[in-house]
Amino acid sequence: MTRLRIGIIGAGRIGRLHADNLLLHPDAEVAAIADPQAGPALREWAAARSIPRVDADAGSILNDRLIDAVFICSPTETHVPLIVEAARAGKHVFCEKPVSLDFRLTRFALQAAERAGIMLQVGFNRRFDRSFRRVKQWAEEGAAGELHLLRVTSRDPEPPPEAYIAMSGGLFLDMAIHDFDMARYLCGSDIVEVYARGVVRIDPVFARYGDVDTAVTTLVFANGALGVIDNSRKAVYGYDQRVELFGSGGSIAADNEYATTAMLHAADGVHRDKPPHFFLERYSAAYREESASFVRSVMRGEPVAVTGRDALQAELAAWAARQSSVAGRPVRLAESEAEAAEAAEPTIGGGSHEN
Amino acid sequence: MTRLRIGIIGAGRIGRLHADNLLLHPDAEVAAIADPQAGPALREWAAARSIPRVDADAGSILNDRLIDAVFICSPTETHVPLIVEAARAGKHVFCEKPVSLDFRLTRFALQAAERAGIMLQVGFNRRFDRSFRRVKQWAEEGAAGELHLLRVTSRDPEPPPEAYIAMSGGLFLDMAIHDFDMARYLCGSDIVEVYARGVVRIDPVFARYGDVDTAVTTLVFANGALGVIDNSRKAVYGYDQRVELFGSGGSIAADNEYATTAMLHAADGVHRDKPPHFFLERYSAAYREESASFVRSVMRGEPVAVTGRDALQAELAAWAARQSSVAGRPVRLAESEAEAAEAAEPTIGGGSHEN
Amino acid sequence: MTRLRIGIIGAGRIGRLHADNLLLHPDAEVAAIADPQAGPALREWAAARSIPRVDADAGSILNDRLIDAVFICSPTETHVPLIVEAARAGKHVFCEKPVSLDFRLTRFALQAAERAGIMLQVGFNRRFDRSFRRVKQWAEEGAAGELHLLRVTSRDPEPPPEAYIAMSGGLFLDMAIHDFDMARYLCGSDIVEVYARGVVRIDPVFARYGDVDTAVTTLVFANGALGVIDNSRKAVYGYDQRVELFGSGGSIAADNEYATTAMLHAADGVHRDKPPHFFLERYSAAYREESASFVRSVMRGEPVAVTGRDALQAELAAWAARQSSVAGRPVRLAESEAEAAEAAEPTIGGGSHEN
Amino acid sequence: MTRLRIGIIGAGRIGRLHADNLLLHPDAEVAAIADPQAGPALREWAAARSIPRVDADAGSILNDRLIDAVFICSPTETHVPLIVEAARAGKHVFCEKPVSLDFRLTRFALQAAERAGIMLQVGFNRRFDRSFRRVKQWAEEGAAGELHLLRVTSRDPEPPPEAYIAMSGGLFLDMAIHDFDMARYLCGSDIVEVYARGVVRIDPVFARYGDVDTAVTTLVFANGALGVIDNSRKAVYGYDQRVELFGSGGSIAADNEYATTAMLHAADGVHRDKPPHFFLERYSAAYREESASFVRSVMRGEPVAVTGRDALQAELAAWAARQSSVAGRPVRLAESEAEAAEAAEPTIGGGSHEN
Repeated sequence: MTRLRIGIIGAGRIGRLHADNLLLHPDAEVAAIADPQAGPALREWAAARSIPRVDADAGSILNDRLIDAVFICSPTETHVPLIVEAARAGKHVFCEKPVSLDFRLTRFALQAAERAGIMLQVGFNRRFDRSFRRVKQWAEEGAAGELHLLRVTSRDPEPPPEAYIAMSGGLFLDMAIHDFDMARYLCGSDIVEVYARGVVRIDPVFARYGDVDTAVTTLVFANGALGVIDNSRKAVYGYDQRVELFGSGGSIAADNEYATTAMLHAADGVHRDKPPHFFLERYSAAYREESASFVRSVMRGEPVAVTGRDALQAELAAWAARQSSVAGRPVRLAESEAEAAEAAEPTIGGGSHEN
Repeated sequence: MTRLRIGIIGAGRIGRLHADNLLLHPDAEVAAIADPQAGPALREWAAARSIPRVDADAGSILNDRLIDAVFICSPTETHVPLIVEAARAGKHVFCEKPVSLDFRLTRFALQAAERAGIMLQVGFNRRFDRSFRRVKQWAEEGAAGELHLLRVTSRDPEPPPEAYIAMSGGLFLDMAIHDFDMARYLCGSDIVEVYARGVVRIDPVFARYGDVDTAVTTLVFANGALGVIDNSRKAVYGYDQRVELFGSGGSIAADNEYATTAMLHAADGVHRDKPPHFFLERYSAAYREESASFVRSVMRGEPVAVTGRDALQAELAAWAARQSSVAGRPVRLAESEAEAAEAAEPTIGGGSHEN
Repeated sequence: MTRLRIGIIGAGRIGRLHADNLLLHPDAEVAAIADPQAGPALREWAAARSIPRVDADAGSILNDRLIDAVFICSPTETHVPLIVEAARAGKHVFCEKPVSLDFRLTRFALQAAERAGIMLQVGFNRRFDRSFRRVKQWAEEGAAGELHLLRVTSRDPEPPPEAYIAMSGGLFLDMAIHDFDMARYLCGSDIVEVYARGVVRIDPVFARYGDVDTAVTTLVFANGALGVIDNSRKAVYGYDQRVELFGSGGSIAADNEYATTAMLHAADGVHRDKPPHFFLERYSAAYREESASFVRSVMRGEPVAVTGRDALQAELAAWAARQSSVAGRPVRLAESEAEAAEAAEPTIGGGSHEN
Repeated sequence: MTRLRIGIIGAGRIGRLHADNLLLHPDAEVAAIADPQAGPALREWAAARSIPRVDADAGSILNDRLIDAVFICSPTETHVPLIVEAARAGKHVFCEKPVSLDFRLTRFALQAAERAGIMLQVGFNRRFDRSFRRVKQWAEEGAAGELHLLRVTSRDPEPPPEAYIAMSGGLFLDMAIHDFDMARYLCGSDIVEVYARGVVRIDPVFARYGDVDTAVTTLVFANGALGVIDNSRKAVYGYDQRVELFGSGGSIAADNEYATTAMLHAADGVHRDKPPHFFLERYSAAYREESASFVRSVMRGEPVAVTGRDALQAELAAWAARQSSVAGRPVRLAESEAEAAEAAEPTIGGGSHEN
């Protein structure tokens, strides 16, 4: 295969973003895009990019023998069925996070992918951020020595709309899931226990859906290190994403980013502009690198950078955090998983705020 | 009274530090210093400072009618008896932290002070750090709006010696107690619940004494905000003290300090020197301001900046954190206090690593 | 015109960079690219981008009636003839800096453009850097009050090859010309006098060509403010680009950039990675914004962001700085211009190190 | 000698500051203080510090056989006569900067000190700033390689009063003299040529006295490196003191200082407090170290940290800068010195704004 032929399923904000990034990639070709809302606007958008085909139905992509891989950027509840179908069709899959709001369904999708022998990469875009990668690289080189503590701060600039909250799966599954993945990624070890304390401080609407908007989650890793994540749905100064690893050799931290280096020293103090607004601004380079990494992995037959197992582990941690928050006690992931085996199916919510 | 006549009880590192700071204060006079180990070295030290009297026994200070106030800088287990005696003698008291390792004893000392009508200030020196005070001031002005989250990072550059560990009362009562106080101070609200997770990552010697060297503690405040403290007994890059308040109006943070602003840009990267080594370097100005604040309060008959109640609340939080760490569940301070009423007296440990 | 049809003249590093940026622009179309070295490699490169035509001769672009505008990215000595020809052909021009190494030729080209009524934008890419734009915006809002001082630091990571040095026109015309433009841009006032002191500290090869590698240049602006630029051909820690405006209201500064925010605190100090290597990394977003600005100006018939006069003024300042450096005294731009009218034509050098 | 017995001449702000620092020094003793304005207030001030003697006349200090050294903190025009008298009396001298506004007088004083074999240290306090010392140390270790460029920024928060301006000797001799010394100190090489461009931007009062309030000065060092100093009499955001060394191995910089690390991220941007107001705040630790260094040098018979020659060289550079600013051309220090030999004596101005 000289260029990877890709079909995009879902033409929302994130689907179009991946399409644009793939269009610039020398080894990729966007062969088609499918969306139930396909109309004149999408057709015009596609035409300006020389994307040859626009479909309303994902089936035409899944049935196209010339397409090598699909990007699943549709609402969360469609991820699992689409992965399963793509697997049957022998197409490699890039799937936005989360794979599902129910880790039992995620596991089902993973098994389908594995049986079919296709490659599956999951959309934890932050792993491709240059600063976090540099932290990871230093950590792997041993710069922090043996790991003792990990801190993640993750705050959105503004809460999602109520309709989104209702379907989101809650702060832990919708938002903190990125942080659980980042924690595992940086620590290089699985999370085995969580204690989550969530409160409603920003907007009572969260309480209406049994959700929280502010949380602190303690993590215990398999390697014995501790971690802590703090989350907020609303930081008025902009998107706030920071990490810190601390160990026997020192600390490795990545501070939040600013759009410029400009600084004003005036009679009333020192001032600079706020950080970039949200994830599209902050992670634009990371998104480019994310899809490039998928293309590279498939072209070379090398393991993907973010696996289905990574997705499952982050979902398990998020699930356990939600349980912990409700039960008011620490919850082990193994225990949470076992209990789930007997529990009723959870309601599967909608798309993701960040997608 | 034109100048406050002060007696120092305990001539260790911290007693001498307070003495030096008081000697520079225009409204204070160091009238005497007492220490069981009083010998030629101490006498010489005192002579060079024109401190007129050196005693082996604190009694001579407590019985001196011309002395207005005492600084209690002796080992922790002597604090409560000395406060009680000073109160009886009608002397105002500055007492190093913690008042005691058993909050029931602390309460006893507080009652004695209150009955006697003396002023009692407790040695939470960090409250006088310029950066933390600025955070507090901004918070009181409402710059962060309604408080949602508080983060405290507190790491020592190296663990105390084994003998100290054995008597310290453990990480929560010995080290994190400063952070519980800082959290209450900055948040302007009492801690009502804690969940502490401690592990041994640095040195197995801690385990030998039932202690931990690394911990993450989640706090719930009376005003509904959440907090989190991370502690380590060993940061190889130096003393690390940071705080952050986050709320509806934004965040207010104080970063760690560096000894100089010098920075080297070289072919292999950018470099600067480590933060100051430990608390004596980092908080030298804070210690000066701390004793000045006590002198000012006593001279003007104004409330002290750090009260006995502050000490008690920090001790209760530390106590509950220790319980939580052992029990593996969140502990409410009220519950912890109630249980203690029925429990056996805890072993009262020795001095404080930072004093 | 629905989309601006553009021909690129010169397919070197900078010509290809502009082509790629224009390809992503919704309102632009790269219709052709011309280069004397056009061969299979260039054809393949163009094919992958769906650029329909590759020519060896710029004439085919200049004679193509369907082409609206040209990007002149060929060696410096071809700029003036190409601008003149493009003007005759009625095509708008984006020309890389410098227009010429002889400001009399530059003036000639400007007159041709003006007579033909075409738009001419010159490639001072740094004006489009987000941080410098923010400084400029604050300055225009009056944040620094009345301007007193301006500082520009501009250092390359490594010297150009000897062949380039021989043809470059020297540090002031080749490298500092960017800084003269930045100074005028930020200060909002013309440079009227310069005093330049240059030395050879890095490599004796510069002396062989009557050039310097290290310089400090004092500027006097028409509005009475002072400025200073420091230049070096070799900063081992990477490309270093900083500016600072200082005035009655305070200072506005833009610090150098770093590739990541990652920071390591270790036992031997604090470390971070070096700044990005060179202008392609540092100004990649600025280059995108630069061509977009040209497209926007032409499409809307609005003035270009960097005019021919801007180019001429920067060249005059550079020319005067070179004179000052040789003569060892301050030189007024007016005087320098007058003298040039009588002097022999200078040797016109080759391309630009940064293009 | 067990403790150095010191007499302070001049009880203004700077004289009292040195007295306080010496009082805290274990090896120093403040034996007397003399000031023509000696009155009840000064006597009270001295009594509170147990300084045994207050005189109106410096003579009583100079004639006191028990006094080992004097601190000359009186107005500038008295420095030379007092150094000469102290030298005759065999007393070591610490003299505030500048020694004199006429370097011929300074040379005369230096010769007197040398003949008498006394130690003479001059008050360039900034050499004792921790950050600048760290820069110097790195430079001496070779961290910046061979030096190419040096930059000094030095801005006062507010201009001195008119009466002071009239007597100050002008910006170069009064204010920039500190920066000439810093440049020599950091570069480890003498200044051989200067080009100074000064303008009046802040207040026309400066023009009335032939003075300037804003200046850029280019330096050429004996070792071939270039330097540049920018000065302003008024930075509304506070005292601004920065240095940067740049060479073949990289750059070493010391940024300005801030009083706290507190930072506010709010909806309208990021804010922090201004730098410390002025030199007393910024250099308080440096002043302590400065007098301690003098005491140490005298006690051990070791060379002083800032010599009479250092003072002379800084004065020569300042003198040449003033000449350059007036003449509008670069001036070599040797030439300036030679010319001065034939010129009339300059008017000797008053005290120093920073003393």
